[in-house]
Amino acid sequence: MKNSVPAVSVIVFCIMAAMPAFPVASAASPSRPNFDITTDKVFDPGAVPAYRGNHEEVYAYIDEHIDQHVEALQRWVRQPSISAQNVGVVEMAEMLRDDLEALGFAEADLVETDGHPGVWGYYDAGAEKTLMMYMMYDVQPVNEEDWQTPPFAGNLVDHERGKVLMARGATNQKGPQRALLNAIESIIATTGGLPVNLMITAEGEEELGSPHYPQIVDKYEARLRNADGVLFPFNSQTPDGNVLINLGVKGILYVEMEAKGGPQGGPARHEIHGSYKAIVDAPALRLIQALASLTSADGNTITVPGYYDGIRPPTAEEQMLINGMAADWDDAQLLQSLGVTRWIDGQTGVDAIMEYLYMPTLNVDGIWSGYTGEGTKTILPHIATAKVDSRLPLGLDPEQALAKIRKHLDDGGFEDIEIRKFSGYPGAQTSVDAALVRAAIGVFNKRGIDVAVRPRLAGSAPFYQFTERLDLPLVFAALGYGTGAHGPDEFMVIEAAKGTNIAGLADVEKYYVDLLYALAQQ
Amino acid sequence: MKNSVPAVSVIVFCIMAAMPAFPVASAASPSRPNFDITTDKVFDPGAVPAYRGNHEEVYAYIDEHIDQHVEALQRWVRQPSISAQNVGVVEMAEMLRDDLEALGFAEADLVETDGHPGVWGYYDAGAEKTLMMYMMYDVQPVNEEDWQTPPFAGNLVDHERGKVLMARGATNQKGPQRALLNAIESIIATTGGLPVNLMITAEGEEELGSPHYPQIVDKYEARLRNADGVLFPFNSQTPDGNVLINLGVKGILYVEMEAKGGPQGGPARHEIHGSYKAIVDAPALRLIQALASLTSADGNTITVPGYYDGIRPPTAEEQMLINGMAADWDDAQLLQSLGVTRWIDGQTGVDAIMEYLYMPTLNVDGIWSGYTGEGTKTILPHIATAKVDSRLPLGLDPEQALAKIRKHLDDGGFEDIEIRKFSGYPGAQTSVDAALVRAAIGVFNKRGIDVAVRPRLAGSAPFYQFTERLDLPLVFAALGYGTGAHGPDEFMVIEAAKGTNIAGLADVEKYYVDLLYALAQQ
Repeated sequence: MKNSVPAVSVIVFCIMAAMPAFPVASAASPSRPNFDITTDKVFDPGAVPAYRGNHEEVYAYIDEHIDQHVEALQRWVRQPSISAQNVGVVEMAEMLRDDLEALGFAEADLVETDGHPGVWGYYDAGAEKTLMMYMMYDVQPVNEEDWQTPPFAGNLVDHERGKVLMARGATNQKGPQRALLNAIESIIATTGGLPVNLMITAEGEEELGSPHYPQIVDKYEARLRNADGVLFPFNSQTPDGNVLINLGVKGILYVEMEAKGGPQGGPARHEIHGSYKAIVDAPALRLIQALASLTSADGNTITVPGYYDGIRPPTAEEQMLINGMAADWDDAQLLQSLGVTRWIDGQTGVDAIMEYLYMPTLNVDGIWSGYTGEGTKTILPHIATAKVDSRLPLGLDPEQALAKIRKHLDDGGFEDIEIRKFSGYPGAQTSVDAALVRAAIGVFNKRGIDVAVRPRLAGSAPFYQFTERLDLPLVFAALGYGTGAHGPDEFMVIEAAKGTNIAGLADVEKYYVDLLYALAQQ
Repeated sequence: MKNSVPAVSVIVFCIMAAMPAFPVASAASPSRPNFDITTDKVFDPGAVPAYRGNHEEVYAYIDEHIDQHVEALQRWVRQPSISAQNVGVVEMAEMLRDDLEALGFAEADLVETDGHPGVWGYYDAGAEKTLMMYMMYDVQPVNEEDWQTPPFAGNLVDHERGKVLMARGATNQKGPQRALLNAIESIIATTGGLPVNLMITAEGEEELGSPHYPQIVDKYEARLRNADGVLFPFNSQTPDGNVLINLGVKGILYVEMEAKGGPQGGPARHEIHGSYKAIVDAPALRLIQALASLTSADGNTITVPGYYDGIRPPTAEEQMLINGMAADWDDAQLLQSLGVTRWIDGQTGVDAIMEYLYMPTLNVDGIWSGYTGEGTKTILPHIATAKVDSRLPLGLDPEQALAKIRKHLDDGGFEDIEIRKFSGYPGAQTSVDAALVRAAIGVFNKRGIDVAVRPRLAGSAPFYQFTERLDLPLVFAALGYGTGAHGPDEFMVIEAAKGTNIAGLADVEKYYVDLLYALAQQ
């Protein structure tokens, strides 16, 4: 998960008035397609029937065992599992496998990959419906000195949000994942079974970009395709207790582009004195020219021929979601939170939403060449490199995108520019009509949670594994609040402060209990 | 001094054959002017009459006192004078002043500036001719651990080039400068006077780009304009003993160009998540587009309107020098020494020389923005910066050049790109017919030194202070060999290894003796 839209609130003053703007690409330049909204219907999450089930015995079990349930989260976060540094990874995989065995999973196995092992689990409830659960058991590295409490101590800390578990992995993702297992444990302990069968695929390399997760899917693909949906346990409440359900993500192509001296000109071995520019080709200028050839002068329209072809416009269903999103989309508030004065071309409202969610991007994440220190140094660098990413809405495949960029560069005489692909995967989309989605909305509605449903994030995650490859709907939203993923003082709320609508651990678990039953009833 | 052309030798095999090339700007693109060579005459340094004077008494004094003369160099290099770190700077200025007083200079004073002090000296020989000497008494910082002998110990070291003084400042420029004072001392001791009057302006900020040297000239400008030429003592022999006389330098404009988020769009405070590129303007792409607008696609022709206007073509005299230069210009050898396969557009010979010495450049010395580490990070950087320099042949003033670039950016809609000027000064040119130049060539010819005279360097130095402001010819070539300026193990040869044509310290001093007499006779 790489992005989320901040919560929306009302700011009356518009800070965009009368500002000068970047020049807009001329009429002759390539332009971005316009996707029309042809309906004024608005998707209303409130119209999804609230889930009516009550599982008082299970809820009571949770309340009675909440201390042990907190301890289960603590046990997990006290086991470091830093994938980038290979610290505690196998131990954590084994802890997850052992926990599944203890819960009565018929299958609970480590799964060999070319990287860190995966974990597979299957719980046969003899039920009609099957829920696939995606889990990640690895965490980000830590800078321990930046933390107010040791990141692997699993301490409970008093915080303005309430009593929180402050530890690496508390919210990303050990906390919500173990909360789901606590819920499962509570149902089994109370009822002797589960309302749905469970398949778990867990990986230990999410923080590395999931390079080997497809190998785990490979092994169980036929069985996984029989599931009814995928749940990624996720603390997705905002501080005011609301929940956003995002039904999709964009894909991404991430490359390095590089110009170097060589047979075509330019210094091949090392930088040379800058005065030689008079007779020596400059790789830095070549990279700059090549990058410039990819966009309009304002940097906002991709000039690679055919790049916008085949992008799937919003479906009728998605248009209804967009109309709903537009109703509480606040340009000024979002701009202010980002420190930005205007959207591209001064767009607002639905126009901005359509750009945001349905247009591909071409973005320079970083560029470097030559001397970057203080003052002056006169050199002709022999190499120049840029990190470039392109966000890919559905319909634009990363391999196609890369091929189009390569051809455009070649056609422009930029054969000398090397492109190194770092990652690439397509977007993912789930229908709001999917049973698992309706079950989730119904459970939120039962609780009176203010739930917003959006067609997709502008950010990227490799969820195509579920939606496109396995053809399963994916829900990555649930009760729970946490923050600090990837940074210091990561936490998950265990007992919410009085007067807030954030769910504490017991309510998070009860949400998962209801969700399993609600899916079974769909 | 920022550049010099490596010595020429013959390499038979041409490494450029049949290589693909950067695309050449299309016919419709702006083009660089062609300056024609309209003469086939070749300047022959050998035709300048050899200096015939012999100053045996002075030479004998030098030989008898060579140990004390070496000690004088050692005394100078043992006094650190690191301008960038303000280490020993005033002490070195006082040492120079005291040395001038001891030599009998009528005036020897520290000169206050807004930076490190200058030194002024005047020796009234009652002579007809007056030589101005430019000196720099500061040195570069050192990384002591990289040196084979402590950089301020002033040790004599056995080296493949002979016995050398290995110390910071040994060749850049304390060694040659104190050698000149040793020569002056020897003439005075032997004859009781000097054949020319001397004016010395010394600065302690050459290694900082001479920011306050003009203040020193300000104070003595009227008197300096009466000099007959300027000598910058310089070890300019190549390892094979030859000497290159360069009669000019290009000027330079050095700027930082920067794009930032602000009212015109883009994140103003900090980087934001890369997925926002879909609706947020990108400063990095703006900088790339702005830089790209300055050159043709191959990076080799400046597309700023009027940039090539007013460049002074080579004079008839310079054309003769170019013809001479072409005779021993070896493309393959120079390419190989630089690690370059071809000159721009595959040019060779006179065409390459003309590009090299008479065309302005636009060069990206460095560029940086966003994430430049390993792997992937998806951000939209809020700022992007490039260091850009333009070498300026005579006729293109730095202020004009800057104004043309600014106007071109503004006209192209790039008002948002900030330009910060770091330095700028025009080129400098001395005529080969100047008395001081002919005196120098004549003294080399007396010794049978293979001397090549070139119209100018492609590199830059602020010599316009002498040539354009004071209207004086400048010579920055003499006997002597040293290397390692700005790096570790800097040295100057004191006694050359047997079988080489490099001058030892005694011969360097005798050269300066002859030069003063030769100038007096011009």
